[in-house]
Amino acid sequence: MTTELSPDAPALGGLLEQARKDYDDLVARGLSLDLTRGKPAPEQLDLAEELLSLPGGRHTAADGTDVRNYGGLQGLPELREIFAELLQVPADRLLALGNSSLELMHDCIVHALLGVLPGAESRWADQERIAFLCPVPGYDRHFGLCERFGIDMIPVPMTADGPDMDEVERLVAEDPAVKGIWCVPKYSNPDGVVYSDETVARLAAMPTAAPDFRIFWDNAYAAHHLTDEPAEIADLLAACAAAGHEDRAFVFGSTSKITAAGAGVAFFGSSPANVKWLLANNQKRSIGPDKVNQLRHVMFLKDADGVRAHMERQRALLQPKFETVARILEAELGGTGLATWTSPRGGYFVTLTVPDGCAKEVVRRAAEAGIVLTPAGATHPHGDDPRDAVIRVAPSYPGLPELDQAIKGLTVCVRLVGYEKQARAAR
Amino acid sequence: MTTELSPDAPALGGLLEQARKDYDDLVARGLSLDLTRGKPAPEQLDLAEELLSLPGGRHTAADGTDVRNYGGLQGLPELREIFAELLQVPADRLLALGNSSLELMHDCIVHALLGVLPGAESRWADQERIAFLCPVPGYDRHFGLCERFGIDMIPVPMTADGPDMDEVERLVAEDPAVKGIWCVPKYSNPDGVVYSDETVARLAAMPTAAPDFRIFWDNAYAAHHLTDEPAEIADLLAACAAAGHEDRAFVFGSTSKITAAGAGVAFFGSSPANVKWLLANNQKRSIGPDKVNQLRHVMFLKDADGVRAHMERQRALLQPKFETVARILEAELGGTGLATWTSPRGGYFVTLTVPDGCAKEVVRRAAEAGIVLTPAGATHPHGDDPRDAVIRVAPSYPGLPELDQAIKGLTVCVRLVGYEKQARAAR
Repeated sequence: MTTELSPDAPALGGLLEQARKDYDDLVARGLSLDLTRGKPAPEQLDLAEELLSLPGGRHTAADGTDVRNYGGLQGLPELREIFAELLQVPADRLLALGNSSLELMHDCIVHALLGVLPGAESRWADQERIAFLCPVPGYDRHFGLCERFGIDMIPVPMTADGPDMDEVERLVAEDPAVKGIWCVPKYSNPDGVVYSDETVARLAAMPTAAPDFRIFWDNAYAAHHLTDEPAEIADLLAACAAAGHEDRAFVFGSTSKITAAGAGVAFFGSSPANVKWLLANNQKRSIGPDKVNQLRHVMFLKDADGVRAHMERQRALLQPKFETVARILEAELGGTGLATWTSPRGGYFVTLTVPDGCAKEVVRRAAEAGIVLTPAGATHPHGDDPRDAVIRVAPSYPGLPELDQAIKGLTVCVRLVGYEKQARAAR
Repeated sequence: MTTELSPDAPALGGLLEQARKDYDDLVARGLSLDLTRGKPAPEQLDLAEELLSLPGGRHTAADGTDVRNYGGLQGLPELREIFAELLQVPADRLLALGNSSLELMHDCIVHALLGVLPGAESRWADQERIAFLCPVPGYDRHFGLCERFGIDMIPVPMTADGPDMDEVERLVAEDPAVKGIWCVPKYSNPDGVVYSDETVARLAAMPTAAPDFRIFWDNAYAAHHLTDEPAEIADLLAACAAAGHEDRAFVFGSTSKITAAGAGVAFFGSSPANVKWLLANNQKRSIGPDKVNQLRHVMFLKDADGVRAHMERQRALLQPKFETVARILEAELGGTGLATWTSPRGGYFVTLTVPDGCAKEVVRRAAEAGIVLTPAGATHPHGDDPRDAVIRVAPSYPGLPELDQAIKGLTVCVRLVGYEKQARAAR
């Protein structure tokens, strides 16, 4: 982290000149590097190579079910057991479904729009207005779902402990149109924030004007630690039940960033009433998830300790990348007053904050130099970061040498755009 | 097939007495047999056992895509090539997606309800009333989707050439609320009807009051022949385009009854505008289908001829079961005037038609004797067969000895209930 300083005018001239020269050199190198998405690197996927030959000769689940045939809407019990502990959902309230938790979030919204949620007075589609609270910066695909279904998005600032709970409590108490909040509670996308126990307790206990308010608890990085002190979060489902709001939480998770990004298993966990509701809807839609893939995952991961051991191997590949990012940002931007950045203890992202009004221009300049970043603003509803200051950096996919080049190039762009802004202000 | 005859009174007394005795014997045997659903038998699934060890060491598609990672919303091109011919959809308009075509039908309705279909004036959710034509007898899960979304169902009688097209043309021409029709065009569920070329041409050409009318073309049994003269149907997409109704058809298919019932691949094919529409909706919902499973299918099936060869092996297992059903029905019910039945050339079902008012009672009596059948009425909207005459028989799952017992038991129930009805009428 750095604090904002402004160099005096002659010094600024030199810094800007150097940044321009460095940028010209960068462009001349003709790079082609991609830091856009939180995609696992091939080496991470190789860790689960054994999956590609499983289940081999076996095709029966522990209870004798033939996994190749139809049926089993809840998913394989033994896989749900493995993830019950990791996702803090009792196995009998945890469903193991398709290959994408985003799909499950989408479908929960669809079913709430076109059917009646437990506790709801009517279908969301029959209500004048539906709004979700969107902690910002946040995950663009969550916001994309709201946009797609015409759900108003109300930004709420993130703090080091999770969303600003004073603001959240005020908004949900006064407006019955507020039906949901997006949360990535552990190693949040993109800030790497871990929700505090107090935040979880307040989310569970707060009075809401809407009887059918839901917390969309996207625990995407439940086991995705980058240090040897794994973060723990409080058990939201238990807290909701204890507060008398048993149906408030929808918990989502997946193995997309554990085993295979396109060929994993996604999970949904909630109260008995919500699980029954989703199953009743799913029953109309499907004759069951891909249980062969679920058996494959059971055989490969074995148990919760197996998942943890696997995630240690993932960490061995990811940690050096995050260290590279931190090292270069500190070396190139430390003390310049041009940027601050996060040092996440897990998850997939580093948030780089540049001077107000500079993020789009940094991303544009980087693209011109062959370094593609997530569009500036993607971390905010409708792609609109009002300060134009947040850049999400996704270091997982490139190899270390490419990552080194890309982050160094990015810092050149930050210096160029930052000093240009200071020079304009000094005129 | 038999024609309806009524025995004279003394003969009827003897027939009924014999039927009662046979039924008592049947109940005494304490059977436990299931003919409810069109599930593949374990031996059929064994034919694709190789899938369980694939893709083995390989994880790249023909174009170099890493199938383990995110992306590829359209599905693997090489898999789409294989099924393009079988489903009569050019590969560039065919999407390879998840494990269930029912899901795709569900999602198409959802997206039409909550978004605007190409050619539509508004979202279906914003319209007073939406109705689908339902050829009867038909597939209960199609009707289940309509029920779930509050879509009115208008039954249309099936003929030997497909739905009664005079009736279909009249209904779609006069009522703009009629937005869709359910079709299983080859070896229909449950009648085994193959739509004639004229039916396909009329479906493609007919004027519809709704500008956003869609044919839900569930080609579930495209390659599922039971004779050595595979049925061919006309190319609906081509016919629609030629008639100036390019966006009229949604084509669905899957490998559920080719490879594995829960772990196959489902397909959607349509016009360029419809494909673009579905992809835009899917893009909000998913970061891509399970491409590892798609590669697995490519390596196992190889090409369209590979699918055909595989389906010959399926037929070798299924044909004896259908022959068993036909043989027993003819031996036990032929000439009794109590039933007619279909002799399908493909697909998964035999339709048994009993005297009016007898289907529910036959199913109830069979259940009491330990033989579970699809509920009578399931073949009609809201589970209501107005004649109470149609029973769907699904012979695929049981082994031959169990099937033999089950069908013989079923014929006992038909005799019992049929003669009881005749006896009541004679009083």
